[in-house]
Amino acid sequence: MSAPHSDSFALPPLSPVVVEPAVRAALAEDLGTGGDMTTDNVVPESARAEIAIVPRKPGRIAGLDLALTAFRLIDPSIQVETLVRDGGAAVPGQPIALVSGPGRGVLTAERVALNFLGHLSGIATATHGIVTAVAGSHARICCTRKTTPGLRVFEKYAVRAGGGVNHRFGLHDGVLIKDNHIAVAGGIAATVAAARARVGHMVKIEVEVDTLDQLEEALAAGADAVLLDNMSPETLKRAVTLVGGRAVTEASGNITVETAPAIAASGVDLLSVGWITHSAPCLDIGLDFRRLTA
Amino acid sequence: MSAPHSDSFALPPLSPVVVEPAVRAALAEDLGTGGDMTTDNVVPESARAEIAIVPRKPGRIAGLDLALTAFRLIDPSIQVETLVRDGGAAVPGQPIALVSGPGRGVLTAERVALNFLGHLSGIATATHGIVTAVAGSHARICCTRKTTPGLRVFEKYAVRAGGGVNHRFGLHDGVLIKDNHIAVAGGIAATVAAARARVGHMVKIEVEVDTLDQLEEALAAGADAVLLDNMSPETLKRAVTLVGGRAVTEASGNITVETAPAIAASGVDLLSVGWITHSAPCLDIGLDFRRLTA
Amino acid sequence: MSAPHSDSFALPPLSPVVVEPAVRAALAEDLGTGGDMTTDNVVPESARAEIAIVPRKPGRIAGLDLALTAFRLIDPSIQVETLVRDGGAAVPGQPIALVSGPGRGVLTAERVALNFLGHLSGIATATHGIVTAVAGSHARICCTRKTTPGLRVFEKYAVRAGGGVNHRFGLHDGVLIKDNHIAVAGGIAATVAAARARVGHMVKIEVEVDTLDQLEEALAAGADAVLLDNMSPETLKRAVTLVGGRAVTEASGNITVETAPAIAASGVDLLSVGWITHSAPCLDIGLDFRRLTA
Amino acid sequence: MSAPHSDSFALPPLSPVVVEPAVRAALAEDLGTGGDMTTDNVVPESARAEIAIVPRKPGRIAGLDLALTAFRLIDPSIQVETLVRDGGAAVPGQPIALVSGPGRGVLTAERVALNFLGHLSGIATATHGIVTAVAGSHARICCTRKTTPGLRVFEKYAVRAGGGVNHRFGLHDGVLIKDNHIAVAGGIAATVAAARARVGHMVKIEVEVDTLDQLEEALAAGADAVLLDNMSPETLKRAVTLVGGRAVTEASGNITVETAPAIAASGVDLLSVGWITHSAPCLDIGLDFRRLTA
Amino acid sequence: MSAPHSDSFALPPLSPVVVEPAVRAALAEDLGTGGDMTTDNVVPESARAEIAIVPRKPGRIAGLDLALTAFRLIDPSIQVETLVRDGGAAVPGQPIALVSGPGRGVLTAERVALNFLGHLSGIATATHGIVTAVAGSHARICCTRKTTPGLRVFEKYAVRAGGGVNHRFGLHDGVLIKDNHIAVAGGIAATVAAARARVGHMVKIEVEVDTLDQLEEALAAGADAVLLDNMSPETLKRAVTLVGGRAVTEASGNITVETAPAIAASGVDLLSVGWITHSAPCLDIGLDFRRLTA
Amino acid sequence: MSAPHSDSFALPPLSPVVVEPAVRAALAEDLGTGGDMTTDNVVPESARAEIAIVPRKPGRIAGLDLALTAFRLIDPSIQVETLVRDGGAAVPGQPIALVSGPGRGVLTAERVALNFLGHLSGIATATHGIVTAVAGSHARICCTRKTTPGLRVFEKYAVRAGGGVNHRFGLHDGVLIKDNHIAVAGGIAATVAAARARVGHMVKIEVEVDTLDQLEEALAAGADAVLLDNMSPETLKRAVTLVGGRAVTEASGNITVETAPAIAASGVDLLSVGWITHSAPCLDIGLDFRRLTA
Repeated sequence: MSAPHSDSFALPPLSPVVVEPAVRAALAEDLGTGGDMTTDNVVPESARAEIAIVPRKPGRIAGLDLALTAFRLIDPSIQVETLVRDGGAAVPGQPIALVSGPGRGVLTAERVALNFLGHLSGIATATHGIVTAVAGSHARICCTRKTTPGLRVFEKYAVRAGGGVNHRFGLHDGVLIKDNHIAVAGGIAATVAAARARVGHMVKIEVEVDTLDQLEEALAAGADAVLLDNMSPETLKRAVTLVGGRAVTEASGNITVETAPAIAASGVDLLSVGWITHSAPCLDIGLDFRRLTA
Repeated sequence: MSAPHSDSFALPPLSPVVVEPAVRAALAEDLGTGGDMTTDNVVPESARAEIAIVPRKPGRIAGLDLALTAFRLIDPSIQVETLVRDGGAAVPGQPIALVSGPGRGVLTAERVALNFLGHLSGIATATHGIVTAVAGSHARICCTRKTTPGLRVFEKYAVRAGGGVNHRFGLHDGVLIKDNHIAVAGGIAATVAAARARVGHMVKIEVEVDTLDQLEEALAAGADAVLLDNMSPETLKRAVTLVGGRAVTEASGNITVETAPAIAASGVDLLSVGWITHSAPCLDIGLDFRRLTA
Repeated sequence: MSAPHSDSFALPPLSPVVVEPAVRAALAEDLGTGGDMTTDNVVPESARAEIAIVPRKPGRIAGLDLALTAFRLIDPSIQVETLVRDGGAAVPGQPIALVSGPGRGVLTAERVALNFLGHLSGIATATHGIVTAVAGSHARICCTRKTTPGLRVFEKYAVRAGGGVNHRFGLHDGVLIKDNHIAVAGGIAATVAAARARVGHMVKIEVEVDTLDQLEEALAAGADAVLLDNMSPETLKRAVTLVGGRAVTEASGNITVETAPAIAASGVDLLSVGWITHSAPCLDIGLDFRRLTA
Repeated sequence: MSAPHSDSFALPPLSPVVVEPAVRAALAEDLGTGGDMTTDNVVPESARAEIAIVPRKPGRIAGLDLALTAFRLIDPSIQVETLVRDGGAAVPGQPIALVSGPGRGVLTAERVALNFLGHLSGIATATHGIVTAVAGSHARICCTRKTTPGLRVFEKYAVRAGGGVNHRFGLHDGVLIKDNHIAVAGGIAATVAAARARVGHMVKIEVEVDTLDQLEEALAAGADAVLLDNMSPETLKRAVTLVGGRAVTEASGNITVETAPAIAASGVDLLSVGWITHSAPCLDIGLDFRRLTA
Repeated sequence: MSAPHSDSFALPPLSPVVVEPAVRAALAEDLGTGGDMTTDNVVPESARAEIAIVPRKPGRIAGLDLALTAFRLIDPSIQVETLVRDGGAAVPGQPIALVSGPGRGVLTAERVALNFLGHLSGIATATHGIVTAVAGSHARICCTRKTTPGLRVFEKYAVRAGGGVNHRFGLHDGVLIKDNHIAVAGGIAATVAAARARVGHMVKIEVEVDTLDQLEEALAAGADAVLLDNMSPETLKRAVTLVGGRAVTEASGNITVETAPAIAASGVDLLSVGWITHSAPCLDIGLDFRRLTA
Repeated sequence: MSAPHSDSFALPPLSPVVVEPAVRAALAEDLGTGGDMTTDNVVPESARAEIAIVPRKPGRIAGLDLALTAFRLIDPSIQVETLVRDGGAAVPGQPIALVSGPGRGVLTAERVALNFLGHLSGIATATHGIVTAVAGSHARICCTRKTTPGLRVFEKYAVRAGGGVNHRFGLHDGVLIKDNHIAVAGGIAATVAAARARVGHMVKIEVEVDTLDQLEEALAAGADAVLLDNMSPETLKRAVTLVGGRAVTEASGNITVETAPAIAASGVDLLSVGWITHSAPCLDIGLDFRRLTA
């Protein structure tokens, strides 16, 4: 199985259809009704700036297109050049992009650019940390629906940039049957059957199980995937054996860089991790001004 | 100086004008074009649920109105009750709100509700951690423009819920003169003068300084506030003495729960902290189903 | 396998989160900047109306919530009562809903209400026609991405109301590999492998095939589903035998009420039909005024 | 009277102000939060495509600008060339436009492009069918407000592309007095007088009549136009004679390609047809890949 | 001809579909990302207010629904009562509406409420001034497309509230042929013919003329209305005689309260006035606090 | 203190992020669903136009970018050239911008362009009138929140273009304590203290006072600015003396070109004027067609 973004197949970019509206909204949020009061009033119209976008900490890059779009929307005459693509390594001190043009536009757009870039690179970096921790194993790392409201399309993309894969994108593109569903729908078998009877053929059905007994029920019901919640590596190993390839196996609960290797060693197909989207710290990325003239 | 949300003056709520559109957008993001495929297809229309929203970890609450609005927008017949207000303490195991009504609606809205609540409570908790660390000092904790794109109004509110105060909300409501501005505008004196001549009388002017020499220049130029960037507690102390009440003093750079007390002890008025908005981990808050019937 | 909307499990409704904005937009489109010039200027404010919404032709109902929301958004004092649910039968002359209240609001909203209702009921009716044609067979009827721009969420719902199931909702929630993809990606095996390596575990992979040779390739590559394009019932039968349960089988191309039974008799799992969304005629539904007083 | 789109006066195009937002929305609907999972993951970034947009069935073209905008918004480097203008003939096998550029963008945008083009060309074709059926008569073909919610501006344009003319665009740009208005406003004379007294001078007033008696009342009241509803060709002829040029005459009800000639022969000015917008089948238009390289 | 808003037929209200989004946008504009900093921080949550909305100057009222919606959107528990309807007289010191409820909400919403009310009442008052000036004549007062961007629907409504009538609402609902159109379309006869051939039967065609010769041409071409631009009352009189009822006559240019009577006396049907929408001063309307308790 | 837009520092332009959406909305408002019926149907596609935008009355220019954007959004091939910048003088007969390109686009966009330009130049002109009236004094002219709903960002900009400065932009970026706040918050001292304790350090606090006694209270409470409401020039002079530089002094109430000099002579820092935004008449600016060919 080739890596999701090997040299021969770069991470596909986000569509401009989703990028531009998000950046417009973020710029409008920062500019309010008064615009950039500082820059507008103290920086001469003639000022020119050349900047490099430079990581201060190591990690993985995600969100460059959003960041560069911020500069271009503020002033279409600003030139941008990408040196590293999303999914590539952030090396402290090594520029990932260059931006040059009117000084006012560059100064006005920088914070929005960095807010996108730092947030998404933080997620890519966190993802990549877990991906690296399980390297050598069979397991892939995937995300959850625990994302920041309004940013899911970008955060799911950042997970891909970090080498992870995406779980379902929302309530609309996959069935994930949890304990509460089972409780009101009359048990695992009945719940899976109800879902199967009503959803389309492109929809996979995953069942969350806490015990091996439940796991057997889910398999018997024909689940496409099973979410093995909060099981120890030993139990996971027994679960994988029990599944025997009949369903995709996903481990969740308490997965960190430290715990991931043992969990992955159980043979599960996936480790799903909520915190890579809801709690990953921002990656520290800054701007170096290479030239700034009045 | 009374605390920002003492018993006698609760944190003012977010306006419904900003809450409702944000929650609608988050629900639409999660529901996509297919709706809640799982719940819709396995939970009977007659199902009823009663849940408690319960913190799993200690902290401070922010975002309850957003969370409860998610339930109400999905199904206006869902009833909600607030037990703790935003700004209040999150005590593990102690419910902060109750939600009851049709089981489908409750199950469909829960993730969006928790995504808002966990994210904002995480920011409130991080803020409160620093606020607590400097308790007893003169200093207040404030935030920056390093926020998640699209969520600034909510993240700034979460900072207030955590006991912090807000720096400017964007480029439009305050002048913050940084090194690059000074570089192209001809020095601190000229830059402050240019800003003063052109902005309105309700706008404060803050100048970022790295050294005590720059600080003297900024004070001479009549800055309303000075951002003392990356100074040691000792230097900050000298800075505060030098300022002598002529300007608000704000310390920034490398402020953590560990470093904050010494920095606050320097006598500065404010500690500004970027990570409370850009890198605070989500506060773990979950749902307890008290009743769930078919 | 129970029917998708048997008596014991009604069709789950559309979320208000998608319904209300669509109806608001449709009303705004009809009202423009001048409002309802006719009604506003000739109908007295005191006028009251009671109407029944009544099918003129037999079929299946879809879109009642959209229709009734049109009345309620124009005037919240208008009362509505639903007599038949979406997915139920349209019987000529038998009312499906009642609306009463201020005459102006009722007259202003009626066209938008009927435009939604007729369009979606037309799709439900067309779908149900094919569903009925294959009754007794194993096959289910599904839709495509050939929908009216901006209305996909509603048209996919109407397909469900007609007893059909949904194919993927868009480019984002399922992999459907067609001839052009195969052409540039190096053959069926390589294409499926590339997709499998990069998409999440909840995503199914379907491959479009024109011949039994391609079908064998697709099965060997591990496709979850195969789209058997434009095959005769005899070839479909051989294809189904060849698949032997290893993948979901979907027949497409030239499927009408007349051709469907023979195609379904081949044993395929699904018949996908583009015209039920892109070319279904409107179902004729009108309004009977039961009372209209000045 | 010259034809609406003779050689010397091409159909005026839709404004980019309405085209671009509609296409953006349609693309966003199709891409959801996951983008084009198939193309993104199996088509190499280097792939190039050249396609021709080719009708499979004869008819009239409408919506080319919307279709080509879909490609350009997905990837601004895609080149498009128009060979036939909206309003022109669709000849099976004869290309109407060429599109070339990055293979990914071409494959991602094609369905949205065709959904607009097929839907609107279907309306233009249906319109043109009736226009042709009444050729040689005095009558023009016009549409109604029975349009697909959210698409009226485009559907009304497609009617013009098919050689028809537009009735009012909404409730806001013309008075059309129907039986219910008359019922609560005190008769035809009073209703027309009330409208005339209150609307602007650019607004025409049309009255729907079922009988020749009502027609006389409407003419006496000074109606600018009369809607002769569901009258036989013979009655229409008498109505036209009775009107004697005092008002525009519009026939409606049960107008098909078969019935239209006789209705037009009655001498009415207009035949208004609801089904050309609400029930016209999609025109079959496809893509021919002329070149597709990895 | 009865008056547009006689006692027996009140001015029809604006649709909630246009009112609510406009008020939401205005509130969001005023609240920005920080909310009402003053009220939120100094007014206790328990405070209650009762206010009367009171004109300070005489005039005509328009926009009450927008104003009251501002209060209700800020806090749904605020109660409102209307004492005078739009179109009614503003009498200095006599309340037109009462508002009561939580003090915070009342204080936060008041400026947005008054901004709508003052602006639109200003337009209604200006309109009414001209309407009054021509009382006793045959002429009606109408507006133009010279409106404030984004507010046309409301400003056209305010003209109606002032007793005026509306010209076309935009470029889309009426043909107004001006000198430049005539210049490129080959003269008045050709221009009118081209328009007549291509527009729908509900569209009226008006031609702007500067001289009586042009007027004859326009009449010969069959114009429905003629815009007599900048003619003296004497010339207007001759124009009216020349028209002899064959077209609606509209005078424009330099129309003020002083000049209007003489112009109206010429016998024209309409006086169109741009300044009532683009330059009418705000009507002074304020708030009286009847009760305000902590 | 240098002038806000001296030769060496031109008025900073509005961000494209706010300009484009506003112009799109205004064009959509004018085009509705039918487009420009007149131009589309009578002006040949080949027509070319060259126009100059020319003031008819003297004043100050504001809004040129909005105006020119209207032309470019309607047809990107239209060329525009700016001859005078916003903030510059409007000299009757002297062109301020040139526009050339396809005749249809030019004719379609002109009214929207002029509506923005006339409205904002009217505000700039009114502002400049007061600015000129107080020339030689120490005072600056500022605006209020009495703006047209939806246009505040542009109207505040027009005030700057006219040589004025901006008061706070909304409720969110400054504290302005009025009589009602004081009434429920327990007096001036308590109110200022409450605000100071809760707002951020970049927020200034202004207190509205009616008497010199209140002024003393406000100063004692540490107000940053005082709004001296409706005081005579004599009282204002005493107030300025009393303040003695401890706060910014703002005079408001009954400020016209006639009264402003005496008020400014009192030594106050600012004169705030509501009518420059809510009641300034449109500046008369028109189009001269230099070339218009079929």
